[in-house]
Amino acid sequence: MYEKILFPTDFSDVATKGLKYVKQLKGAGAQEVILLHVIDEKELMVLSRAPAQYQQIVEELKKEVATEMAVIVKEMTSEGFHVKPEVREGRPSAVIMDMAKKEKVSIVALGSHSKSDIAELLMGSVSENVIRYAKVPVLVISKDNA
Amino acid sequence: MYEKILFPTDFSDVATKGLKYVKQLKGAGAQEVILLHVIDEKELMVLSRAPAQYQQIVEELKKEVATEMAVIVKEMTSEGFHVKPEVREGRPSAVIMDMAKKEKVSIVALGSHSKSDIAELLMGSVSENVIRYAKVPVLVISKDNA
Repeated sequence: MYEKILFPTDFSDVATKGLKYVKQLKGAGAQEVILLHVIDEKELMVLSRAPAQYQQIVEELKKEVATEMAVIVKEMTSEGFHVKPEVREGRPSAVIMDMAKKEKVSIVALGSHSKSDIAELLMGSVSENVIRYAKVPVLVISKDNA
Repeated sequence: MYEKILFPTDFSDVATKGLKYVKQLKGAGAQEVILLHVIDEKELMVLSRAPAQYQQIVEELKKEVATEMAVIVKEMTSEGFHVKPEVREGRPSAVIMDMAKKEKVSIVALGSHSKSDIAELLMGSVSENVIRYAKVPVLVISKDNA
């Protein structure tokens, strides 16, 4: 049932706790994790207002993302998962749903912010959209769970 | 991980599809299902405006609920689950969260309406509140999943 999990991450504390929970899904049959980070097109748009630094900042951002991804891939691989890292640019919820469809995942697992969290203002709409429109079940892991 | 599942149902088509998915969780280790129906206190408040018929309508409602519950209990039991039916009155999301805590469930599984669904206006706030505030992971099963 949980062979193939799509786990989107923004490398936040909440995502880290979500990942901790996903590890435990091994006992429920989880084998493969598509680890997805979406570089939000909105952030890129903001950056494009500074064209002189744009290329440099984006390159640095991508390097940071690659480093963070590598850490998680290593960690999950040592836990026995088959991990496929993916980095995309776009609207996070749309990219997540496209990836879920393309990769035919069994489930999308999401770390979720609580309402009181300031980051909720940014992240909330991503998980909300995925929960509403995803064609596969969505496992929502609140930061209190892990 | 999924030994004990709390499955709230309003007996809708969406809940029925959610239940179909929950059955498949047997392969992921699910053993016990707390089957919860909450009689919405708001409905009872509306009914209380008709005091002459109140008692009779509530009795009929409870009888219908008992019949619906019995059908699901039989179905789930024959699938090898240990099922504990619970009927409560109150605010659905609050009752669901209290039950999750009291019963120390591993997960809350919820059938979810899509945004385009008219019933979403009623049901949406229940799942939204549970997703936001539950202290355990929430598995959201959209009606397209099952």
